[in-house]
Amino acid sequence: MTTPIRPSSSRRREEPVRQESLRTINLELVFRHILAATHPISRTELAAATGLTRPTITRIVEDLLAGQLITETGIAHDGRAGRPRVGLTLSDRGPAGLGLDIRADGLAACAVDLTGNVRHLAFAPSPYAGRTADAVLADLARMADAAIEAIAAESLTVVTATLAVPGPVDAGIVRSAPALGWRDVDAGALLRNATSHLNLPVTVENEANLAALAELYAGGDAGAGFVYVSGGLGIGAGIVLDGQLLRGMRGWSGELGHVTVYPDGKPCPCGARGCLHTYASLEAILGDDPAPAGVTPDAAILTRADAGEPATLAALDTASTTLGIALSDVLNILDIDTVLLGGSYALLTSWLTANARAEINQRVLTTDWAPVTVRPAILGPDAAVIGAALTSIDQIRQRPATWLLHQPTVR
Amino acid sequence: MTTPIRPSSSRRREEPVRQESLRTINLELVFRHILAATHPISRTELAAATGLTRPTITRIVEDLLAGQLITETGIAHDGRAGRPRVGLTLSDRGPAGLGLDIRADGLAACAVDLTGNVRHLAFAPSPYAGRTADAVLADLARMADAAIEAIAAESLTVVTATLAVPGPVDAGIVRSAPALGWRDVDAGALLRNATSHLNLPVTVENEANLAALAELYAGGDAGAGFVYVSGGLGIGAGIVLDGQLLRGMRGWSGELGHVTVYPDGKPCPCGARGCLHTYASLEAILGDDPAPAGVTPDAAILTRADAGEPATLAALDTASTTLGIALSDVLNILDIDTVLLGGSYALLTSWLTANARAEINQRVLTTDWAPVTVRPAILGPDAAVIGAALTSIDQIRQRPATWLLHQPTVR
Repeated sequence: MTTPIRPSSSRRREEPVRQESLRTINLELVFRHILAATHPISRTELAAATGLTRPTITRIVEDLLAGQLITETGIAHDGRAGRPRVGLTLSDRGPAGLGLDIRADGLAACAVDLTGNVRHLAFAPSPYAGRTADAVLADLARMADAAIEAIAAESLTVVTATLAVPGPVDAGIVRSAPALGWRDVDAGALLRNATSHLNLPVTVENEANLAALAELYAGGDAGAGFVYVSGGLGIGAGIVLDGQLLRGMRGWSGELGHVTVYPDGKPCPCGARGCLHTYASLEAILGDDPAPAGVTPDAAILTRADAGEPATLAALDTASTTLGIALSDVLNILDIDTVLLGGSYALLTSWLTANARAEINQRVLTTDWAPVTVRPAILGPDAAVIGAALTSIDQIRQRPATWLLHQPTVR
Repeated sequence: MTTPIRPSSSRRREEPVRQESLRTINLELVFRHILAATHPISRTELAAATGLTRPTITRIVEDLLAGQLITETGIAHDGRAGRPRVGLTLSDRGPAGLGLDIRADGLAACAVDLTGNVRHLAFAPSPYAGRTADAVLADLARMADAAIEAIAAESLTVVTATLAVPGPVDAGIVRSAPALGWRDVDAGALLRNATSHLNLPVTVENEANLAALAELYAGGDAGAGFVYVSGGLGIGAGIVLDGQLLRGMRGWSGELGHVTVYPDGKPCPCGARGCLHTYASLEAILGDDPAPAGVTPDAAILTRADAGEPATLAALDTASTTLGIALSDVLNILDIDTVLLGGSYALLTSWLTANARAEINQRVLTTDWAPVTVRPAILGPDAAVIGAALTSIDQIRQRPATWLLHQPTVR
């Protein structure tokens, strides 16, 4: 009886040593210590923490200062009484990350500096009906120009851009974004084309994934697990487990809007029946009475609900119940105990949570041992564009040497 | 406008160097090379691959040979023509891993050697009705004794045991296993007690997770992503993404049986309504006509289906459709493109796939770009117990020095 089976470790390989110069390795080591420090850190502390010699630290710190990756800031106390030293901390000049977002109700642009602070945030209400992807991305390119110009005045230079889109993305190509009427649109190429004068690397990513990342950063709980629900014209989810985004095999995870609630229910634009989308999207809640011109769908729903309009209250009840049924499936499958309601759902939290909680408590097998929390997301509708900008700057945070080597424009 | 947000890398810490002796590090390095090799490897090749000196290799190989972790095997060709050398490969004596499984239809025990080969596999049909957890685990302890005795004759020593159970587990405590009538049963403590004469470390894990691991090992695709469905009296799933088991926050992921199919449907033993369990468990398919004494539920269903019994065919149709609806939710949420039907479902694959595939093709948003495959699992009903045994031996594969240090009984 010898069924041949190869346990996992048989596939473990020894990785070849990476061919990086010692100088780069040491520079990135020092930079990571400055990143991780909760207070300005002195050259003496850096030498102690890294085990590098004082002359090496001095040279690396000069490189990081010259490249505007770090800055000197007042005084750091290194533990020895009465011996104040010059502290080093991340620079709020130098490299910046750009985020762009195509939202249900318009376009957004955001720039963050190396410290993760938002330095520019702009929103342009914009209807999509009848507009081509080209036209939408040309508008976004103009917002990118404006963002870059605005932060240049503060000595910030955008080094990479990330575009958030409401649908699954495949190497820059948006496979299906029904809210925009897009299918197989090469948004990466279109945006690179529209911003060719900027010569920026462009990444395209699902908006719910980016918003979940922004919430993870904002929440500051590295061990976190949560399902971020992005409610709007479409419904998406960004899944975080062990402090990491769970992207699936192609980055297409979290299609919450197309979880089946009633198998024989309403027809969905996706071609199936009874998807959550048909009961809980803003469109579904608005029903036959769309938002008036100039009013966003979520604001219209909120006004009607506050006025006690029966059709809207009934629609919100249905949305809350069906959201709870679909989320129960997600939680039973993933073993996660926190749900963040984001996008337009953040505004509607008080109308959406009661039924959803009741369904979750009834349907999730393990709530007796691990109660589920449902709460509004922290960042509101800007989460995705902020997450996009943070994803851009994270490339420099991960590989600061790249910035120093390839950004001759830095002063 | 300075919303403080801390990107992920701010949480990255430099790990302290692990306090292990150089001797242990080098021994494990050499062992990993032997593990990873696709053919017997010579001492000369090991020296070249690891960068260790020949005397160091000689000493480590002697330790590994003495501990029966590796064995000399005929001749290895190290690339130089005409220079055959003694090859080294994993030992099929020495340490073994024990797996135990509480299945729908009985109890199973399995032992694997360090190469991952199954060296013992036993099954005892056993009804659970009216039996306490104590009694069931006492039976399992006797099967463990028999397994240990059987493989001792082949110079194999069991070093650790893993128990598979059909439900979510929390540090050895089975939270909820309706198929067994268990709730908050400390199966780890009960099994340790029943096997106290063996003095084995015991791990308790969900059976679908273990079966998924066994399929991963057997399939040999390290980059794999799949949903393993364990069909039986209960329905569970083991989720593999990027070649890793996705366990969720507490190891409770994959509660596929409690995904909602019809929100207002049949009451489920879990307290909710319309769970997949109520339509697609073996009990549900058997309906009012349970399997005759001495016949397993899956065999009874298969016999009736082959005989064209209308009620059984209709029940299988419903099971297939509802399974497809629930799986569509899983695939939309996780972005996985392969489903393996395991447990009793492996036997019923030909009756369960047609409707399930149709539902998946209609309901999963991305099937146009990434078609979904539904196929039977490779290992059949023994997957979980084999996965349990592999999980046990993997502890030695990961930390061979532990075995050498703490197993004075090795000849």
